[in-house]
Parts: sequence; C-alpha cells; structure tokens
Amino acid sequence: MEHVLERATLFRDQVFPSQSALYKRLASDGQNPRALMISCADSRVVPEQITQAAPGDLFVCRNAGNIVPPFSQANGGVSSAVEYAVVALGVRDIVVCGHSDCGAMKAFSNPAALEKMPNVAAWLRHAHAAHSVVCSAYHGLDEKAAARATALENVVVQIQHLRTHPSVASAMARGELTLHGWFFEIETGNILALDGETGRFVQVTEGASLPVAVPAAPRLAAADQFRIAAE
Amino acid sequence: MEHVLERATLFRDQVFPSQSALYKRLASDGQNPRALMISCADSRVVPEQITQAAPGDLFVCRNAGNIVPPFSQANGGVSSAVEYAVVALGVRDIVVCGHSDCGAMKAFSNPAALEKMPNVAAWLRHAHAAHSVVCSAYHGLDEKAAARATALENVVVQIQHLRTHPSVASAMARGELTLHGWFFEIETGNILALDGETGRFVQVTEGASLPVAVPAAPRLAAADQFRIAAE
Amino acid sequence: MEHVLERATLFRDQVFPSQSALYKRLASDGQNPRALMISCADSRVVPEQITQAAPGDLFVCRNAGNIVPPFSQANGGVSSAVEYAVVALGVRDIVVCGHSDCGAMKAFSNPAALEKMPNVAAWLRHAHAAHSVVCSAYHGLDEKAAARATALENVVVQIQHLRTHPSVASAMARGELTLHGWFFEIETGNILALDGETGRFVQVTEGASLPVAVPAAPRLAAADQFRIAAE
Amino acid sequence: MEHVLERATLFRDQVFPSQSALYKRLASDGQNPRALMISCADSRVVPEQITQAAPGDLFVCRNAGNIVPPFSQANGGVSSAVEYAVVALGVRDIVVCGHSDCGAMKAFSNPAALEKMPNVAAWLRHAHAAHSVVCSAYHGLDEKAAARATALENVVVQIQHLRTHPSVASAMARGELTLHGWFFEIETGNILALDGETGRFVQVTEGASLPVAVPAAPRLAAADQFRIAAE
Amino acid sequence: MEHVLERATLFRDQVFPSQSALYKRLASDGQNPRALMISCADSRVVPEQITQAAPGDLFVCRNAGNIVPPFSQANGGVSSAVEYAVVALGVRDIVVCGHSDCGAMKAFSNPAALEKMPNVAAWLRHAHAAHSVVCSAYHGLDEKAAARATALENVVVQIQHLRTHPSVASAMARGELTLHGWFFEIETGNILALDGETGRFVQVTEGASLPVAVPAAPRLAAADQFRIAAE
Amino acid sequence: MEHVLERATLFRDQVFPSQSALYKRLASDGQNPRALMISCADSRVVPEQITQAAPGDLFVCRNAGNIVPPFSQANGGVSSAVEYAVVALGVRDIVVCGHSDCGAMKAFSNPAALEKMPNVAAWLRHAHAAHSVVCSAYHGLDEKAAARATALENVVVQIQHLRTHPSVASAMARGELTLHGWFFEIETGNILALDGETGRFVQVTEGASLPVAVPAAPRLAAADQFRIAAE
Ligand SMILES: [Zn+2]
Ligand SMILES: [Zn+2]
Ligand SMILES: [Zn+2]
Ligand SMILES: [Zn+2]
Ligand SMILES: [Zn+2]
Ligand SMILES: [Zn+2]
Repeated sequence: MEHVLERATLFRDQVFPSQSALYKRLASDGQNPRALMISCADSRVVPEQITQAAPGDLFVCRNAGNIVPPFSQANGGVSSAVEYAVVALGVRDIVVCGHSDCGAMKAFSNPAALEKMPNVAAWLRHAHAAHSVVCSAYHGLDEKAAARATALENVVVQIQHLRTHPSVASAMARGELTLHGWFFEIETGNILALDGETGRFVQVTEGASLPVAVPAAPRLAAADQFRIAAE
Repeated sequence: MEHVLERATLFRDQVFPSQSALYKRLASDGQNPRALMISCADSRVVPEQITQAAPGDLFVCRNAGNIVPPFSQANGGVSSAVEYAVVALGVRDIVVCGHSDCGAMKAFSNPAALEKMPNVAAWLRHAHAAHSVVCSAYHGLDEKAAARATALENVVVQIQHLRTHPSVASAMARGELTLHGWFFEIETGNILALDGETGRFVQVTEGASLPVAVPAAPRLAAADQFRIAAE
Repeated sequence: MEHVLERATLFRDQVFPSQSALYKRLASDGQNPRALMISCADSRVVPEQITQAAPGDLFVCRNAGNIVPPFSQANGGVSSAVEYAVVALGVRDIVVCGHSDCGAMKAFSNPAALEKMPNVAAWLRHAHAAHSVVCSAYHGLDEKAAARATALENVVVQIQHLRTHPSVASAMARGELTLHGWFFEIETGNILALDGETGRFVQVTEGASLPVAVPAAPRLAAADQFRIAAE
Repeated sequence: MEHVLERATLFRDQVFPSQSALYKRLASDGQNPRALMISCADSRVVPEQITQAAPGDLFVCRNAGNIVPPFSQANGGVSSAVEYAVVALGVRDIVVCGHSDCGAMKAFSNPAALEKMPNVAAWLRHAHAAHSVVCSAYHGLDEKAAARATALENVVVQIQHLRTHPSVASAMARGELTLHGWFFEIETGNILALDGETGRFVQVTEGASLPVAVPAAPRLAAADQFRIAAE
Repeated sequence: MEHVLERATLFRDQVFPSQSALYKRLASDGQNPRALMISCADSRVVPEQITQAAPGDLFVCRNAGNIVPPFSQANGGVSSAVEYAVVALGVRDIVVCGHSDCGAMKAFSNPAALEKMPNVAAWLRHAHAAHSVVCSAYHGLDEKAAARATALENVVVQIQHLRTHPSVASAMARGELTLHGWFFEIETGNILALDGETGRFVQVTEGASLPVAVPAAPRLAAADQFRIAAE
Repeated sequence: MEHVLERATLFRDQVFPSQSALYKRLASDGQNPRALMISCADSRVVPEQITQAAPGDLFVCRNAGNIVPPFSQANGGVSSAVEYAVVALGVRDIVVCGHSDCGAMKAFSNPAALEKMPNVAAWLRHAHAAHSVVCSAYHGLDEKAAARATALENVVVQIQHLRTHPSVASAMARGELTLHGWFFEIETGNILALDGETGRFVQVTEGASLPVAVPAAPRLAAADQFRIAAE
C-alpha cells in the first residue's frame, strides 16, 4: 500500500478538478467558516468527516485531548485559534469535541507512560480537573468506564475554560456565540451533545433540536443596576 | 442551507454504515497513524483531504499558522502532540504544512488588527524569525509576495523548532524519522515540498520521488570519537 | 493621631484579655473557618467587618481587584489560598467580594496610570474579560457607571475562574461547595449578591434567603452513561 | 449558630449606621491608607484587629504564608498590591506579618499533604529559602520549634523579596519607606518585630519605640561618585 | 590581522605546553574554584584578567549587564550557575562585577534601540530597579553620569537578588559566604568595591582590607527565641 | 597563597600600565568584538585563554553547560547576549564551546545530586535532547564515554537552538553569520570543531581551514518562487 504522503498528487490530479470552483472562490474571497471546532489530534476523529463539512466550513484546532487552556499570560496555540476565530472570523459557534478511547484521557491511569512524555504530562494539567472530578465524585468505575467518564467531564472542563477567554466572554455577553460540547463514539459513529440545562450528555438525533452547552443569549450581570439608576 | 453542526447525524446515518468495519477495527485495535501532520486551522486546508487520507492514517495537530514552538519549560499543545506522536505512536514522518493566503502570516503586515488579538500576537512570536528573515533578507517584495515568502520561510522555521524537541532529536539521531515541509496552494491544489538539500521548495509531481526537508539517516556527532578511542 | 502601627500593643493590652479564651482555643485546636472570602486589598473593605466575623470564622485572601487567576501551570497566591481552603480546610463556601469605587477596576479607563505600574497592568489581565464585556456589550455608560459595571462583571468572571481549579471543580461535582458573588457598596453598607439563576445582582435582605452564584449540588456529566450501561 | 455569610445584613443594619459618616467620607474622598500589611490568609490573624485599625487605615494583602514573590516577569497579586500601594497610594510603611502555628510553614515538614496541593507546593517555593535556612543552619529543633523558626525566617526572606521590587527599591532609595517584619503570636496576642540592626525579633512593648526591619533613610550607592567628580 | 578564531591552535601549540601540568591536574582532580564571579559579557571586561586568576581559580558566569534574576519558578542560566557554585562547588565568595561604559546600562536611556532587541529589553527588567532608583532618587545627572549611577546601583540590586536564592540565603545564615559588589573602570583599570556598612563604593587599594558588600557571619533571626524558650 | 580576590590591585598596578593604551582606546571607542563565544562557567575553560584573545576581541556569555535556550517568550540572559551580539554589535561568528569533564553534562547520570539543585535541574532541560540522543542512539558506552558523547551532542543541540533566534535566523539568511561548534579538551589543550557537512567533530589543526558548523551563505527558501513569478 502506498504511503499516505505519496498521495499528495492524487488530490490535485483526481479530486481538485471537480472542486476547483469552490477552492478558487475560497482563495479569492478568503475563508468565512461557520464554526470553530476544537477536537483531538487522534487520527480516527476527522472533524470534517463527522460533520460532513466542505472546505471552508470549519475552522479547526486539533491537539492531544481537545484541550482549551484557560486564558492566561502565557497562552499558546489553542487560545490564539479561539481568539482568531471569534475576533477575526466572527464565528457564532464553538464546538469542543471529545471522543471515545482517547489516549490522552487514558494517560491519567498510566503515570508510567507519562514519565517518558513530560510535555504531554504538563499539557494534561489542563484536563486535571476532569480527572479530579472522576476520582473524587464517581465511584465504582472500572478503568474503561473511568476513561470514558474522564473524557466526558473533560468536555465540560474545556467549556469552562473557553468562558475565561475575554473574546469568548464578550461574544457571549452580547448573545452572539453558542458553545457546544460533543463526544464522538468511534465504534458507533454516534455523537453525544452536552445539554447545559441538565448538565448531561444526550445522543444527537435527527429531527430533534441539537442540545447545546450554552445557548446564545445576552448576559449582562449589571443591566438592572443601570436601569434602576436611570429611573 | 443547513448549518454544518446540524449535519452531525448525517455522518452516522449515511456515511458511517459503509465504513463501520474500518471504524470498529480502529476502535478495537487503537490508532496506528503513519504520520503526524501539523497544519493551519484554516478552514480551506483539510489535511485528510489533501492527502486523501482515511480515518486512522494521520495524527493531526492544527493551529493558527501551523506553528511548532521550540522545546521549552512551558510547552503546550503542539509540543505534546509531537511528543505523543513520536514517543507513544512511533510515527516515522512529520509534515509541517503551510498554505497560501494564510491569515496568520498576513497578520505580520497588519499590526493594528493584532492589537485586538493579544493571544494571536503572542503566538506569532514563534513565527517571528520568518517575518524577520523576509524583512531583512528579501528585497522589493509587495505585500502579497511578502506574505507568501513569510509563509514559506515559516515552514523552514517550524522545521528548525521541531528539531529542538528531545523526542524528535532522538528519533532523528536513530535514523527513524523523516521531516517534511509542505506548502499547499489553495487556488491550484498544488503542494510544494521543501528540499533540504537545496533549501528550496519544489512542486510535488507524480512519479518523481517526494522531496524531504530532512531525510531519515542516523546522526551521531560523537561516533568517531569512540571508534578512535576504541582502537 | 497615633500611627496605626504604634497601636500594636493596644490590641494585646486592651482587647486580647477579653478574647483570650477564643484565641487560646484557636491556637490549640487549629483553625476551622466556615468560608473562604476573596476580596480586594482596599482599606475600606474589611471582610471581617462586613460579615461581623470573629477570629477563626473566615479564611481571607485579599489582592488588588479581588481576582482569582484561572488554574494554570504558573499559579500563585490566590490559587494556593483556594486550594488550601478547599483541600486542607474543607470550606463549604467561597465568596468573591467586589466593591464600589474600586481602584483596580477604574484603572481600565486610565491606561496612563497603569504605565507606571506594570505589575498591576499585568495582574489586571485576569479581569480583562470583564472590561471587554463592558466595552462591547454595554452601551451609553459614563465613566462612573462603566467602572461599576466592570466591578460587577468582574465578580462574574472571577467565579468562572474559580471553577477552573481542580479542587473547586471536584468539590462542586460532589455537591460540597457553594460559590457566592458579592459586591459591597461602601457608601451604603449594602451587599449585593449574584443570583446564578438570573445572572443578576440583587440586594441581600434580612429574612430572605441569600442568593448564591452556584448552589451546592452534585454535578456528574457522565452519570447517565453508566446508569444506562449498568442496566 | 447562624452561618457567617447570613450575617451580611447584620453589618448594614446594626453596625453601619454608627459609622456611616466615616464610610461616606471614604467613599467620596477615596482611600488614603497609612500602611500596607501583607499577612497570612489564616482566619485567626485579622490585620485590622491586631492593629485596631479603622476602615481606611490599612491596605491589606493576604495569602497563604504572607509571602511576597521576588520581582519577576510573571508577577501576580502580591506584587501588584505592593506596586499599587507604593506608587498609587504612596504608603510610607509596609508590614510583612507572620504568625504562630502557620499551616503554610508547617507544610514544609509534611510533604505528603503537599502532594494533594500542587499549587500550594509551588507557591511555597517562595518561602523555600526560609525552610532551607532552618534545615541547614539551625540544629536540634523539634518539629514545633522548626515550624516557628521557619515562620520567623520567612518574614526575613519576604522582606528581602520586597526589596527586589523597583517601586520599593526606589521609595527606599529616596528615604520614603519603612519596612517592618512582624510575627503575631495567636496564643498570647503578642507581636514580635524584627530589629534590622541586630537581625533578631523582639517583643513590641508600650512606650518603647517600635523596632523596624529597615528604617526610612536615603540610600544612594553612587552619591560619592558624583560629589567627587564635581569637586 | 588573523581572526581570533584562527588562533585556536596557537594556545595548544605555544601556551599549553608550559601549563600542561596545571591543566592535567585540573582534568584529573576536577575543578575547585575559590569564587564565583558574575560579570558582563562585554569584551573589555575579562574576569580572569582583572583578578590575574589562573585556570581553575574562578567559576565565571557572564551575561549582558552582570544580572542575577531573583529566585523564581522559571529561573535560568544565572540562577543555575549560582546554585551549582554554592551547592556543588562550595564557593565561599560571590562577586557581582559591573563596569564603566556598559552597553546594557546605557540601553535604559535608548528605548528606540531596545525595540529591535526584545530579548534584551525583557532581560533588563531585572535591572529595572536600578534604573528606577536613579530616575527617582538622583537629580541633575547628565546622560553619562546617569549611566554610571545606574551601573553602580545595578550592582546593589543584583546583590539583593542573590540573597533571594535559597542556596545563597542558607550559606549566608551559616556564615559561610561573603558577597562582593565590584565595579571595573575600563579606562583606569581601577576596581571599586561596595562597602555594605556605608552603602557606598570605594576604590580598592593595596594593603587596605577589601571592602565587602555582606561579610560572612552567621545570621539566625530566631536564635534568641529558642535560647529564651530553653531557659 | 593569596586569595584571588585580593589580587584586584595587582592587575591595575602591574598589568594595566603596559596595556593602558588598548584599554583607553576601548573605553573611548567602545567595544567592537569579532565573535560571540558561549561557553561553560567551568573555571578551567577560559575563552580568552584558549583563543589567545585580547581585551575587546570576544563578547563572552558563560553559563553552566554552555547552553542556549531556544527562542521563546520567557527568554533570559543567554538569549539577550545572542541578540545584543548580533543586532547591536554585528558579530559575524558565534561559537558554542563545550568541554571535557563538564559537571553539567555529568549531572545527567547523577539524578540524586540534582535533587539538591532544582535550578540546575530545570536549566538542564535545555540540554535534555543531547542526553536523550545519547541514551537512545548510542550503545555500550560506559559512564565516562556517555558524558563525553553528551557534551559533544550538546554542542550540536545548542547550535540548533541558536538557529531558532530571529536575530540569528535573519543574519544567517543574509549570509552574514557563521556558526561554530567547539569542544575543548582540558587535558590536552586540543580543540575539536564540528564539521556541519559530515556532522562530526574533527581536531583543529594549524594550516588546515577551520571546520564550521554552518558556514555563512545566503539562505532564501522562497527565492525561486519570486524569480519564477517575475519571469
Ligand atoms: Zn483523543
Ligand atoms: Zn493559515
Ligand atoms: Zn478594590
Ligand atoms: Zn499562616
Ligand atoms: Zn556591560
Ligand atoms: Zn562545563
């Protein structure tokens, strides 16, 4: 079987011709994606595949564990992608997408493997809250169930982290941004979505409305203060 | 037109069934990707599309500007993806893939826009060497050509950064890792590849062997020392 | 008038004698405070005064702007106080307490003053989301109203930051921690409390139950997954 | 017994009325505190109580272990409080106040407890010099005496750290700032003050002048140079 | 004139033969230097020259501005050299050596030049206290005198920074370490030494004892506490 | 034997007089060094000695392990020295000079000693790639040979790090900077130089041209792009 990198001409020669109009338009008009998706680097979870997205549809940030570090002074690639998507591209939806059998989430139960990967160990600190929740609030889970629970709680944690970013907090306060927490099940092709109302993940079904983590709605904590003051 | 996030059931219902054997195998056996691709978050550059890769083929890290921070004490998501790919997955190829019309590369000539995006500005420090090379060593480029030159030099810079990671340096010393520097041209579907011998980018063509940035070959700086000492 | 530091013997000689039993008990038994209060360093906002707390009642962290940096790899004093309060002391309530006429919040509208205070400027990045929300989602506020709105939104932001700390997220998941967002009005002695249900601040009144930002209640995002699996 | 947070109306209804003139003046004139006190978050050490200070008298920074990180590029809340107090408020005195039975100081002899509190462990690095001094220069102390010695040496260390802050160094060079190192004994109500001349802590007594760590006096290392040059 | 790097064989062929016994002993016994000298990278200030030291005499750390960052969590090369010198080599003296016409010190009055050197600008933050002292406490200095005053105050600042390092603080508490603050005048060959008693720099003269910044003497802040307790 | 610090007058009185013309010229004209040398703080490796350099010839940065951290947001002394040398002084050569029997390199095989030196341990992360290469790609080395191999590979690693600095990358792209990797053998006085062509270290010999790690030559990855575009 040919090596994947040897197929670099296959696309241009056999696929591009039928999509050249789209690509040329995207090249001349620039991109205008509808959503930012933050997902795992895992080779089995292809964001454009599971959303059946076309080129130009999704701004995509991928890293080990679909992690979003909280806003801070030393932020890096994920924070930049979030800021660029919200401020420069004006996306109206952000999806944090976890998945089953995630190597990053399973690493919490394998400290020995992490010793050889100090960068990964440091990076997983941003998912430590999920691990900590599972350790202290769930009971009686075997290793596999614990990994799944960690992956699900990790989506919740990363949604919290997203909200600490000024660009996200501002767009949310203006009611212009919806946050989604997804979980892709490799073995079934199912997507579970976090329902912010109940705090639980539910399977996405056709026809039913898509559950969201935080719906778009203006949020002004001090609004009353000034209405009162104005009267 | 339906929103891309509403298509989450489309994949499962219409696409997954015909690929379920592959997905189930990937779920039970785990992933075993052939390469790590580090590319831009840009919605027009889909790694699996331009390599015609199947699920399970590519471990993918995407961020604004296809950047690889050099190894340091405060490393984040990209460094973790690199470490995980090399140490845990044993990939034999790493591709850094830039592209034409890259918003991150164009930001260098638009400091006003960066003022509203402090995270992006900080993140682009890791591409500052490319900007600096273009400013001080190229002459007479217009804005568009400068952006293209920056994007190309940026691939060279990120390849240098990759080599500072202990996991990468070690795999290279053992001769088990090939580094690739690619550039995807949205408007033509072409891929240019960095040829490490000449330091130039050349178009990938079918039949010709794929140019590489750094070929796999053992590199032991002190090898002679001990052969001599042993005699 | 005597300098405040010269009164160091006044306490021992005139106040301590009547409270020596309490202090001796606190010295021998150790502290067991009921709540952690995070408030501003402002000299006009004395946590023990506005809660009429006795020695031993409140674990108190005070800094310019009652800020809680989000959890990260380079955390400092506030994060340590939160962790110590939750893990070592087992407090069941955390109050983030802002106040009127806050110098830190007013600094956002006075960049010139901040130039002479680089540390303060850097520290206020952790409140930048509040400033950003007020700038982009409130309209028509004069400088005084903007400072008040920023101080109120800042309490909301710091509550979000609190939730990124693994110790807090875990205690919340177990249902053992209540989060409070307060605002003290120096000129009236009133306390406003954030009502998490409505996202608004309401005045605390005697007899009525105290509004809380996030009530204590178990939160297990994956609970259903395993109940279903178990059936 | 009523919960301390339920007493939020008690202050306004029963205490504020008799102090409303002071509070209203502080609200309209702004704060003008006489000193900055840096003390522990411990619930038993209430700065305004042990100095019998009124609202408006003391700018107060409290954290676990009354720590002042040395000036650096990643400074946080304590450094900001120091800078704000010296530059914006012009305080003439800074007190670092340690205390007996300090949980943070005792943590050095309990590494197991620190494992569950990584933030606290990292924070205590700023007190590591005190621990190190006690380990290597004191001999024959039991655990309780070692904790007390560490708490006392820690006050000395934090005074050194204070001096690395440019705002503090400058005010000291101008002779406009006095540094105090205090230690509050919970069980007796005594305050010990560091005497910079002897390097020892002495009990504060009424009538006697207050010992100071570093008195206010101009300090110009190069003054002679220019006088000589001018002659 | 031959390039300095071409003289790499000159040393071995013409100098080494007469010193080979010393070098061979140093190679077999290891180094045992008498002091750590921290001086500027400036090509005109050669530590071994101005102390007439032989190979093996001085452990030397050189950087732009003879800077010692205060102890912190992200310490680098200078801190490591200090720690290695004190802990592993057991040096009894540390010299911070500034000099006249120092480019780093002059950079404070040339912000435009610093814009092209962001690393230098960041590094000089560790000398900011010296600049700040000169700006706010000296008056009427012309640019040249200000640079000299900054270089002298900078030595004082770096001595303060040295004391924040646990290894230094501990060795000082044990009375086993002397700190020296020197200033080398390129045009005269003179050395000025900081006299910690007076806080002034004085010229080193033959026959007179060498002034020191902080003499070796045990410093136990809590010593009395335990003597008293024991009685 | 007189203490080395007591010889501070010896230089001025006995050495300076014969070199006063050189020193006075260096003081009035400023420095104009021909090269930057980055070498170890080790007392046995004196850069000016092994190159037989005069005052003014070499800009020198010395630290434990002759390390150059890769360019990043938190860079320190070495990065500043590199930037200052290239941008402000315009040096045309940079030498990274390792040496035999290096304590820093030997520390990798002595983790227990590093536990007492946390700063050194953190600093050595920048040489971790060298250690990692030796561990995984060399076989059958005894401890002494491993230390030597690590010291040699470390020179290679630090040369890679140098190239990540924008000032260095730009000067190299312009063809104005040569990089050298040296290794000084204390016991023989020999210098080995890295030959970038072969990736091996060879002994420097008189008459033969000096091997260099990266020769000065313009490097424009995108040059062809624009030549083609221009035609
Ligand atoms: Zn994953
Ligand atoms: Zn791009
Ligand atoms: Zn305030
Ligand atoms: Zn305490
Ligand atoms: Zn200098
Ligand atoms: Zn060495």
